[in-house]
Amino acid sequence: MADAGDGPILDSARLTGFCRAVFERVGMPEAEAALCAESLVEADLRGVASHGVVRLPIYAERLERGANNPRAVPRILRETRGTAVVDGDNGMGQVVGAWAMEVALRKAREGEPAWVSVRNSNHFGAAAWFAEYATRAEMIGIAITIGGINHMVPWGGAEALLGNNPFAIGMPMRGAPPMMLDMACSVAARGKIIVAAKEGTPIPPDWAVDRDGVPTTDAARALEGFVSPLGGPKGYALTLTMGLLSTMLSGAAFGREVTHMYEDFARPQNVGHLFAVLPVTAFEDLDTYYARMETAAAELRGARKAPGVARIHLPGEREALLRQARLGEGVPVAAAVMEELVALGLRLGVPPLK
Amino acid sequence: MADAGDGPILDSARLTGFCRAVFERVGMPEAEAALCAESLVEADLRGVASHGVVRLPIYAERLERGANNPRAVPRILRETRGTAVVDGDNGMGQVVGAWAMEVALRKAREGEPAWVSVRNSNHFGAAAWFAEYATRAEMIGIAITIGGINHMVPWGGAEALLGNNPFAIGMPMRGAPPMMLDMACSVAARGKIIVAAKEGTPIPPDWAVDRDGVPTTDAARALEGFVSPLGGPKGYALTLTMGLLSTMLSGAAFGREVTHMYEDFARPQNVGHLFAVLPVTAFEDLDTYYARMETAAAELRGARKAPGVARIHLPGEREALLRQARLGEGVPVAAAVMEELVALGLRLGVPPLK
Repeated sequence: MADAGDGPILDSARLTGFCRAVFERVGMPEAEAALCAESLVEADLRGVASHGVVRLPIYAERLERGANNPRAVPRILRETRGTAVVDGDNGMGQVVGAWAMEVALRKAREGEPAWVSVRNSNHFGAAAWFAEYATRAEMIGIAITIGGINHMVPWGGAEALLGNNPFAIGMPMRGAPPMMLDMACSVAARGKIIVAAKEGTPIPPDWAVDRDGVPTTDAARALEGFVSPLGGPKGYALTLTMGLLSTMLSGAAFGREVTHMYEDFARPQNVGHLFAVLPVTAFEDLDTYYARMETAAAELRGARKAPGVARIHLPGEREALLRQARLGEGVPVAAAVMEELVALGLRLGVPPLK
Repeated sequence: MADAGDGPILDSARLTGFCRAVFERVGMPEAEAALCAESLVEADLRGVASHGVVRLPIYAERLERGANNPRAVPRILRETRGTAVVDGDNGMGQVVGAWAMEVALRKAREGEPAWVSVRNSNHFGAAAWFAEYATRAEMIGIAITIGGINHMVPWGGAEALLGNNPFAIGMPMRGAPPMMLDMACSVAARGKIIVAAKEGTPIPPDWAVDRDGVPTTDAARALEGFVSPLGGPKGYALTLTMGLLSTMLSGAAFGREVTHMYEDFARPQNVGHLFAVLPVTAFEDLDTYYARMETAAAELRGARKAPGVARIHLPGEREALLRQARLGEGVPVAAAVMEELVALGLRLGVPPLK
């Protein structure tokens, strides 16, 4: 992804308004447009630029060209007390995912665990956003998705059959942001390799393999190849498992069925997700749970530090702190992204950002 | 762990018999002794020596000294239709975990997802062993545990507050071993650092940090320090989340409450686990599921290969192939481990292995 330091800093509410207007202009109803706008700007607020407004142009293009359905109506295909299979009607992943997570929450509010699988969806943005639906309801949330592009090889392979499949697990805290694991399965994001290639600097040997599956420190050759899983075969097994969980329980696309989000506008992507909600209260009194989580957090924060480390962060804490700051100070947008947003606004007749 | 290539190769049935006799001699009932013996030898059969008979001496010592309860009777503390909290009565983790997994399976057989949390358990061996309970029943199984020793630091820390917490996710295949993710959260096992220290060879810079939390390539200094999480902060978030999931839903020990499996025989370890079983049939017709899993497996296996790669393996496949071979050829046991087993047998009056 482009460096965010070279562009303007924008008020998050204005940025959200702009995104919302774009989504409406390409055919989305007001509420769904607002939801998608919020998801993008939330990612930027939290410093997860890769899932922020940088995605607005491709989302808009897919919606305009009919690759994604702007007026999708998700529905439940089959259901038990604790499970559901949702068809997303080829809607935006944010809309479909939020809808599916609400289904899971409704079930979990009865005090039982819920799992909801999804097919016929699209790229859903940041996984943590969905897990937070559960943590806000004082429950544990899990969100898993298959990636929108095959960027990874099976271990030992030289052919992209796997996405860099992200997942999030959120555990609620009282009076503090949730403990939030949110990760994809590669060592480094492809965006970092793009930057290195532009700068002509070498990359670490474990970041990528070339088009033949051989590890390379040459960023340009890495871009012709594939990103490497973290921990080698562990990351391969992890991304494969997350991909299978996202697709085999719903009929979503896997492996060769996966189309390229940025290159194929003819066919629906049929992206799959899997969501789980686990009510804490089924296992533990909420006060006890929160008190123990707080003790754990305090212990971790108070641990002896390595030289030069000022603060130990909990998973998701950096993002929550950044969000707090950026709500006041604004959101940095990379110059290249800003250029695209301006062009998009002009083309669609959306009032400019600044 | 010691190199297994320098010791004898033993028939797995005889090895199991020996382990069973040891467990019985230190007070375990016949069925539970057999279960624990099976768990250990299964790990060795699958090439996971770190969870194999190398653990028999410490298990026996803990049972003899009353640190683990040989005649534990697990019970359900609270329960809903889809959840349960199990107290393991300080029994062997294998016994308690198998019992808890049976509870989860019983619930899942009614067609709904089940989660069972466990407290007052102990080190449970290989996580995949429990996930396989579910895959044998044509369901998806998840097994998570907190480790029996704090070996890892919070990211940026220099104090061991985290275990290298393993988890397994197994997905059933038809007529083939399950797709089985089974991983801990460090880059490398501590055993590999022990070997490097003995040999005086350097270790890669991402394997460990020294006692001050600074990355080191000196294996001896690494042993005074802590193992590093895979993917840096990602692995930290992952191991922390797995640890919290294993303990916060059951009242099991976390952080400073965690005692040292090899050093503290006075207090029960109060190890926690979390198991989940997900019935495939709630989401997808079993035939469709199996057919799609088979297609996915065939695609991955048939992928273009990197130079020098003869075969692409699915997660858990190497282990399953090794198991098949070793059932016939026998199980290699490292010389140092063999010495300990012989001494243990002599001391307890168990007929020798050979």
